[in-house]
Amino acid sequence: MAITDRVREILSWYGSDSPGTLTNLARMLSAGTLGGTGRMVILPVDQGFEHGPARSFAPNPAGYDPRYHFQLAIESGCSAYAAPLGFLEAGAREFAGQVPLILKLNNHDVLYEEKDPIQAITGSVRDALRLGCVGIGYTIYPGSTHRLDMYTKLRELAEEAKANGLVVVVWSYPRGSGLSKEGETGIDVTAYAAHIAAQLGAHVVKVKLPSAHLEQAPAKKVYESHGVPVGTLAERVRHVVQSTFNGRRVVIFSGGPTASDEQVYDEVRAIRDGGGFGSIIGRNSFQRKQPEALKFLGTIMGIYAGTHK
Amino acid sequence: MAITDRVREILSWYGSDSPGTLTNLARMLSAGTLGGTGRMVILPVDQGFEHGPARSFAPNPAGYDPRYHFQLAIESGCSAYAAPLGFLEAGAREFAGQVPLILKLNNHDVLYEEKDPIQAITGSVRDALRLGCVGIGYTIYPGSTHRLDMYTKLRELAEEAKANGLVVVVWSYPRGSGLSKEGETGIDVTAYAAHIAAQLGAHVVKVKLPSAHLEQAPAKKVYESHGVPVGTLAERVRHVVQSTFNGRRVVIFSGGPTASDEQVYDEVRAIRDGGGFGSIIGRNSFQRKQPEALKFLGTIMGIYAGTHK
Amino acid sequence: MAITDRVREILSWYGSDSPGTLTNLARMLSAGTLGGTGRMVILPVDQGFEHGPARSFAPNPAGYDPRYHFQLAIESGCSAYAAPLGFLEAGAREFAGQVPLILKLNNHDVLYEEKDPIQAITGSVRDALRLGCVGIGYTIYPGSTHRLDMYTKLRELAEEAKANGLVVVVWSYPRGSGLSKEGETGIDVTAYAAHIAAQLGAHVVKVKLPSAHLEQAPAKKVYESHGVPVGTLAERVRHVVQSTFNGRRVVIFSGGPTASDEQVYDEVRAIRDGGGFGSIIGRNSFQRKQPEALKFLGTIMGIYAGTHK
Amino acid sequence: MAITDRVREILSWYGSDSPGTLTNLARMLSAGTLGGTGRMVILPVDQGFEHGPARSFAPNPAGYDPRYHFQLAIESGCSAYAAPLGFLEAGAREFAGQVPLILKLNNHDVLYEEKDPIQAITGSVRDALRLGCVGIGYTIYPGSTHRLDMYTKLRELAEEAKANGLVVVVWSYPRGSGLSKEGETGIDVTAYAAHIAAQLGAHVVKVKLPSAHLEQAPAKKVYESHGVPVGTLAERVRHVVQSTFNGRRVVIFSGGPTASDEQVYDEVRAIRDGGGFGSIIGRNSFQRKQPEALKFLGTIMGIYAGTHK
Amino acid sequence: MAITDRVREILSWYGSDSPGTLTNLARMLSAGTLGGTGRMVILPVDQGFEHGPARSFAPNPAGYDPRYHFQLAIESGCSAYAAPLGFLEAGAREFAGQVPLILKLNNHDVLYEEKDPIQAITGSVRDALRLGCVGIGYTIYPGSTHRLDMYTKLRELAEEAKANGLVVVVWSYPRGSGLSKEGETGIDVTAYAAHIAAQLGAHVVKVKLPSAHLEQAPAKKVYESHGVPVGTLAERVRHVVQSTFNGRRVVIFSGGPTASDEQVYDEVRAIRDGGGFGSIIGRNSFQRKQPEALKFLGTIMGIYAGTHK
Repeated sequence: MAITDRVREILSWYGSDSPGTLTNLARMLSAGTLGGTGRMVILPVDQGFEHGPARSFAPNPAGYDPRYHFQLAIESGCSAYAAPLGFLEAGAREFAGQVPLILKLNNHDVLYEEKDPIQAITGSVRDALRLGCVGIGYTIYPGSTHRLDMYTKLRELAEEAKANGLVVVVWSYPRGSGLSKEGETGIDVTAYAAHIAAQLGAHVVKVKLPSAHLEQAPAKKVYESHGVPVGTLAERVRHVVQSTFNGRRVVIFSGGPTASDEQVYDEVRAIRDGGGFGSIIGRNSFQRKQPEALKFLGTIMGIYAGTHK
Repeated sequence: MAITDRVREILSWYGSDSPGTLTNLARMLSAGTLGGTGRMVILPVDQGFEHGPARSFAPNPAGYDPRYHFQLAIESGCSAYAAPLGFLEAGAREFAGQVPLILKLNNHDVLYEEKDPIQAITGSVRDALRLGCVGIGYTIYPGSTHRLDMYTKLRELAEEAKANGLVVVVWSYPRGSGLSKEGETGIDVTAYAAHIAAQLGAHVVKVKLPSAHLEQAPAKKVYESHGVPVGTLAERVRHVVQSTFNGRRVVIFSGGPTASDEQVYDEVRAIRDGGGFGSIIGRNSFQRKQPEALKFLGTIMGIYAGTHK
Repeated sequence: MAITDRVREILSWYGSDSPGTLTNLARMLSAGTLGGTGRMVILPVDQGFEHGPARSFAPNPAGYDPRYHFQLAIESGCSAYAAPLGFLEAGAREFAGQVPLILKLNNHDVLYEEKDPIQAITGSVRDALRLGCVGIGYTIYPGSTHRLDMYTKLRELAEEAKANGLVVVVWSYPRGSGLSKEGETGIDVTAYAAHIAAQLGAHVVKVKLPSAHLEQAPAKKVYESHGVPVGTLAERVRHVVQSTFNGRRVVIFSGGPTASDEQVYDEVRAIRDGGGFGSIIGRNSFQRKQPEALKFLGTIMGIYAGTHK
Repeated sequence: MAITDRVREILSWYGSDSPGTLTNLARMLSAGTLGGTGRMVILPVDQGFEHGPARSFAPNPAGYDPRYHFQLAIESGCSAYAAPLGFLEAGAREFAGQVPLILKLNNHDVLYEEKDPIQAITGSVRDALRLGCVGIGYTIYPGSTHRLDMYTKLRELAEEAKANGLVVVVWSYPRGSGLSKEGETGIDVTAYAAHIAAQLGAHVVKVKLPSAHLEQAPAKKVYESHGVPVGTLAERVRHVVQSTFNGRRVVIFSGGPTASDEQVYDEVRAIRDGGGFGSIIGRNSFQRKQPEALKFLGTIMGIYAGTHK
Repeated sequence: MAITDRVREILSWYGSDSPGTLTNLARMLSAGTLGGTGRMVILPVDQGFEHGPARSFAPNPAGYDPRYHFQLAIESGCSAYAAPLGFLEAGAREFAGQVPLILKLNNHDVLYEEKDPIQAITGSVRDALRLGCVGIGYTIYPGSTHRLDMYTKLRELAEEAKANGLVVVVWSYPRGSGLSKEGETGIDVTAYAAHIAAQLGAHVVKVKLPSAHLEQAPAKKVYESHGVPVGTLAERVRHVVQSTFNGRRVVIFSGGPTASDEQVYDEVRAIRDGGGFGSIIGRNSFQRKQPEALKFLGTIMGIYAGTHK
């Protein structure tokens, strides 16, 4: 595996990590279509757990089969495939070595819906190691009354992951009674959520694309008085990247359910232009038939790679 | 112990498990009347704990004796016998090696009835090993406010069980304030519950036979818009099997208290036709006299084996 | 220590236990006046903790001294003496080897009275070992909202006790908001409580003598439709014994505060006639002067031994 | 270190303890002015933590310095000095070997005042060992809704302390919503609190001097019907000593803030006459200038030793 | 590294600590501009976590880069740099050995605001060791209903830190429903908070500069009756130093957001004159451009060193 200069540069930001963790981070950054560019597109498939199987896979029933997502990630040239324990166990031997795997260590369902959510621990660092994963994934909910417990648990798992040479990927999703619905994706809250994940020791941070909404009054005052540019999506991406150790941590973005592919492509362009490191794309890819999914993901990777406008 | 091609095929779905766990899974799939067919009938006797001894055993007082159930499981040709610690301790030496045993690791009583139930931990992986069990059993209650704690604990026990070469059998029973009474057996909820159990790393999943009810509005919308066929019981079984990694995890079914044996047989036919892997039959078998129980279980196994219509 | 056939028979029911545990169980069954008969009378003195010292010992102030109870148990020929940590520590060296000891591992006081009680952990398996005990004692409160936590903790302690060759004695006392006051000693609830203790792995189960009250509607229906005989005290004892693995676990009984010695003797006759394994007698023995206590306990043992009508 | 017969007698009550623990108990009983008499006066200085530094030390500012209390304990001939971690760490090297030390393992402040108090764990058995202490101190609040958790934690710490040859000193202070304000020092409650501490394995029990108040109705009935003498302070001390294993555990007493030295001396006389083992005297000693404190403590010790009336 | 007499004197106060911990404390006291004087200025940068990135760094966007703060601490001659895990991980290799580091082990955000705050555990002693830190930092909130849990956890971490030769720095910040807003910085509460931190085993205590407000009635009475001088800021600093083991523990102070640099300098003069050991200065330094920050910090250090009036 040859390492590009850009990958080498990114690895240089993680001076406190072991060669083992850097090796696994290099594997993610060197895999797939975008390998070596410093950009990543990750395929996450935890929607079966999060929303139920029919809501996730009825639109493209091939997705009921856990092998489908391994294949999709491999054939589309994704940088990594992230899923809960069961889905990874069901394909890790068959597809061993073909795509970097991230074991999602916590999950949540919607069979009961809490105002202040928390997640169940559904996997371990040892599970990640026995399944050949490059890293672990973990969700935090800044804004939930349970957030501090989630941070505390993440730290424990991250310490164990790092001691075992794994990469730590954190999904930082503001939710809960500390925030308005609009505030969950507000730019101040999103930048704050990304910063917290980085402070907790994440190597890779994943947030939702932020809106221009400013949720917290003391923050709003600062954004306005200092003229922090957050008017365009690219500017907001740039601000999130800045808030994540001034670009010295990998930050990737997910969108929500969007109306059209063109909108997604525009979002990807904004991520690219704002200095974001890539996308994590779940439902939008595995809920369409495989040929369309490959084309869709190919276009996105092309935008990042510069081979597609 | 000769392994049939069908058993070999089923074992092939568990590529992340150790030879030790596959050995024990093969033992369950090769035991009893249905050994080698890929179908299973399991005898569970935890009703004494769950509902009290008289409600469980007064109809057939032979069942007060823990040895009775070992004998019933052996003589009827069941694939395995599952029970709490005390019942297994009371016969494991006498019947050692005669029937695969599953130690139920958690249990609940009805001396206090909670809106949002959870279970006590009543056995350990070490207990299962010292009693010669092939696997552990564990109940989760998706829909309960305690569900995330139950998932977290299951994961810990499952990791330990797998590290010790045991099979993990999960009873996934939706209950609690997140669901209506009707919703507990709704097809969307049942399929979701089976999927969660599989994602948590279960090798064998046990759910109740689902009704055509659709509980959750966003799910209902998907079932209807995508025309997921759930009109007949066989279709619903098929959908649950599909939702459990597209048939690559063993799913078995229990009925509730039913009106007549014929109804049970019809349910078994639906499970068979829908691609289900078998039944778990407790009260309906041990609450009748042994000769009738043997005949009843024999008929069910015959339906699965194809020797009975 | 010669083992009688009856003791040998009782030991045969515990096929999953180690020779170490059987040795200690044999010690209890072979000690004192009733040694070898398969019946037991145990002296428990935890009332100082449970109700306070004056309420316990003012009627017979010799009982303030922890040595008194060792002497009483030894001189009266009890099968074992059970007490909390402090009381055992205060005499275990002086009376080493003279009477089987049971360390009560949890206790409760009445300086705050909860609707749903739980107990403090007040001793450990290691304490029991260093004090030379044959077993541990543990109380559960089926019916309390805390019962599942109590079961979970009992299981942990029982596993450790068994791994160290100790006997597990469970006080199963229904209490809490799941039950009416009358229900706490109802026959359905008592039989259920004894069954739960056995399922949790108890070697010896202790319950209160049940009344004819039927607490839970679904149980009442079964008792009535199946004509389970619970009219006389002996019948109710027989039903509890049946509910505890059909007599294959040792079940002993306590009465409440009773009006006269004759009433106690009648209760003992009912336990004997119903197939119960003996009595646990605290306040009724140590709250009278020693000569009277010896006579009283002697009469009870005589009823069990058949030397007293 | 020569051991007197009286000390030897006291040690004989602790037959279940290791030579290591007896050695440390002998050190306390042999230290200072009262060494060898079987009586003790302990200096406790946790008021800085419990009430704040100014309320504790402004009356005698020399007490802000942690060394002051070591010196006071040594020069006054106290049997031991008890304090939280920080205060002991600040002098343990300088005064090593000059006075027996007791590390208080839990503490409470009044910056928030709960109806049902509990304490923070503020030291460990390992801390006690590295600081050269003879024992650990621990407070329980019988009457608080948290009491059972406090007992459970005490038991764990006591087991560890005993395994390491340390003495266990328990402050048993009834408080919380189970008791009226007057009830906290009622004789029934105080005797009960002392009994609980002894049952939990304490070697030395510390309670407040009890009033004649009887808090709990069932206890009141027993005290009255059996004519338990609790009319004078000496009688009440005698009853507490009786309730603590009939005098076979060391019980010491603290007073509250009192009006005059003569009152304190009278209390000490009552403790002496009632068979109490001594006093624990904090604020009343360190809040006056050292010469007065030495004189005050000297008088108290003289009363216990019989050299002062 | 030569040790001055003053540093040697300070080290002598920590007689219960290991040479390892003294070595690290000596490193802090010997580093930077104030090295050897016994005074310290520490740069803390946890505001990104505590208030969000924009509120922290928009005023001086260089601060988004974690390397900036290492450089600022080094170039300004600070005694140490304290930050959460992520910020330290991002520079510890590059700046290894150039400035003593303190890993902040707990943190809090404002995405949900509790009446009674607690913090998440965000780092470990092992993290501090692998990053080459001289010590750990930990915040407690005396006055919060969660304070006792925070003390308990601090004690565990402090014991582990000391066993590994690290220094323990405690941020003692009164907050929560036990206190009025004004009371959080009242002199009685501040002195109490500093005393608690020292009792919990802190080597270095950090509090806010206290106001003359007296929060608690019993304390107010004592301050007034004993005429404790708290009228001027220097007097209040002196009282806090006195309350922290009479000056035998290092106490440093932070101000709040202040109106002018001159006010800060006046506060520093008061700390100096009152016998305080230094300042911890975060926002006031890193929120201005580096040249101004260096000048500002230089002036403060000059006041402490006596080279600036």
